[in-house]
Amino acid sequence: MKGTVLYGARDIRFEDRPEPKIIKPADAILRLSASCICGSDLWPYRGIANFAELPAPMGHEYCGIVEEVGKEVRNVKPGQFVVGSFATSDNTCVICQDGYQSSCVQREFMSAAQAPLLRVPLADGTLVPITDVPPKELIPSLLATSDVLGTGWFAADAANVKSGKTAVVVGDGAVGLLAVLSAKQMGAERIIAMSRHESRQKLAREFGATDIVTERGEEGIARIKELTKGLGADSVLECVGTQESMLQAIRSTRPGGYVSYVGVPHAVKLDGTELFFGEVHLHGGPAPVRRYLPDLIELVLDEKINPGKVFDLKLPLDQVAEGYRAMDERRAIKTLLQP
Amino acid sequence: MKGTVLYGARDIRFEDRPEPKIIKPADAILRLSASCICGSDLWPYRGIANFAELPAPMGHEYCGIVEEVGKEVRNVKPGQFVVGSFATSDNTCVICQDGYQSSCVQREFMSAAQAPLLRVPLADGTLVPITDVPPKELIPSLLATSDVLGTGWFAADAANVKSGKTAVVVGDGAVGLLAVLSAKQMGAERIIAMSRHESRQKLAREFGATDIVTERGEEGIARIKELTKGLGADSVLECVGTQESMLQAIRSTRPGGYVSYVGVPHAVKLDGTELFFGEVHLHGGPAPVRRYLPDLIELVLDEKINPGKVFDLKLPLDQVAEGYRAMDERRAIKTLLQP
Repeated sequence: MKGTVLYGARDIRFEDRPEPKIIKPADAILRLSASCICGSDLWPYRGIANFAELPAPMGHEYCGIVEEVGKEVRNVKPGQFVVGSFATSDNTCVICQDGYQSSCVQREFMSAAQAPLLRVPLADGTLVPITDVPPKELIPSLLATSDVLGTGWFAADAANVKSGKTAVVVGDGAVGLLAVLSAKQMGAERIIAMSRHESRQKLAREFGATDIVTERGEEGIARIKELTKGLGADSVLECVGTQESMLQAIRSTRPGGYVSYVGVPHAVKLDGTELFFGEVHLHGGPAPVRRYLPDLIELVLDEKINPGKVFDLKLPLDQVAEGYRAMDERRAIKTLLQP
Repeated sequence: MKGTVLYGARDIRFEDRPEPKIIKPADAILRLSASCICGSDLWPYRGIANFAELPAPMGHEYCGIVEEVGKEVRNVKPGQFVVGSFATSDNTCVICQDGYQSSCVQREFMSAAQAPLLRVPLADGTLVPITDVPPKELIPSLLATSDVLGTGWFAADAANVKSGKTAVVVGDGAVGLLAVLSAKQMGAERIIAMSRHESRQKLAREFGATDIVTERGEEGIARIKELTKGLGADSVLECVGTQESMLQAIRSTRPGGYVSYVGVPHAVKLDGTELFFGEVHLHGGPAPVRRYLPDLIELVLDEKINPGKVFDLKLPLDQVAEGYRAMDERRAIKTLLQP
């Protein structure tokens, strides 16, 4: 088969790769219905965060049909449609049971999902099967639950978004947009999206944003304060991962409020004294998508949400390099890849 | 009257000061029953954190009898015994109503309490009156509620200490010791105190510590992991405020666990990537003591807790300089000052 491999900055190749095989008895092999490119893939693509080893097979968002399972696998079987998280989990350890499957004691981060076939370790704990094979038009939204929606959902949950409260979303990438959708689902009364791109603002409003703030940095913070009686917001969802965005999030939050951060931070240093006097709650990390998957899948199957709208570019898998370019140049919010 | 003034590093003077007067109509003047020296007073005393202006009147922990009130004061009256927080609050703004009185929109940090008389702004919101003047033997414990116990209590609350869970307390100062007491009151099953001082270990055990860890830094973290099935603790209460203690706390916490920090951080910088992959909850700041005061006062009056035990040195107010020396040299945990 052919799969996607990053060789270096902006050097994506779709090339011959060995077909994945069952290696451990808890593995499953999936034939993917769709995969996609993550905002986090752009860091190594841009050469900012380097993988320990290059070339590196790319992709960690996936859904598809089970092709084969290892001899210990009990919860999924060949022929079933499944969605899994970008982080594998046994779903039985203490950390998993507490809802932090993305930090499972056996966790591995997935890779090599921008390909037609994928090996998933810890299949029983990682994958969620769906009773019937879903209709094709729901595939993008089901694929979204695998990471980008699950991560936006965690942003809203970790920022304690509650009915009647004000939530600010920093970042208008796919995760930020789905954080808006998540905050709406959790009942936020006011959802302020920080975005300066018209097409993204439009989608943010469609997903539930009540206000758009185009200013950034100190001006953005001042604008949020203006909109929140001078106090700052109850919940601020940081969906970028830069020093500027983290500070913007922390400084836009009222004392006693909540800041979540769900994008891998790059060169972020937080000053203890500022955090102390800001008196915010801070929580983030790799989203425990597995915790939310059953509920998110149900919301999609019931057509109560349509997170697949973030895929504004759909390409055949063999054009994956163009998918990266389009996202890198912000021509696309998120690229879906069809094997 | 005479009061305590810091002139520079290790230069504490007990000298003539003007008697405090009502300045604003929401003020009250107290005749203090007792005051004390705070661990946080040692930072400027050691010349590490400088006040913007020196000389600076010292002291922010207090209880006593109301001597006079401004014309807007309704909730307290002359002759009443009151306890107040180290941070003033109107107790009516949105932030106060949410329980973050230490970040009240009208907050001032108290000072000049190491003296016989004290002016307290926003008396109605800041002070909690007690129906009868309490017996003398309860004064140390009531004084403790004003800051050191309230701060330890916040450490336990912010770290989500719950019945049956494991809590680690980093720091064996008075706040750390009362964080142990607070964790015990909140039902923690296992309370691990990190301390290498025998007298403090003894008091920690008396307050409810089930384990003592004497190692620090990487060895301390390894020891906590050993005691928690390799995972880290559910709740870690950071009661020091240095880079080393913050990292020790964060790295001793299991993914999804809670870290609180209640001492003003000094030169602390937190790495975003480490926080992200640690996946802890982080919350701290100036303790909203006013939130807890009514309950803490009741626990003291009912003699269910005896936080006053942290005062292992009691001096007449005019020997305040010796009180600072004893704490600086760690000969005393905490010094009570009797006017």
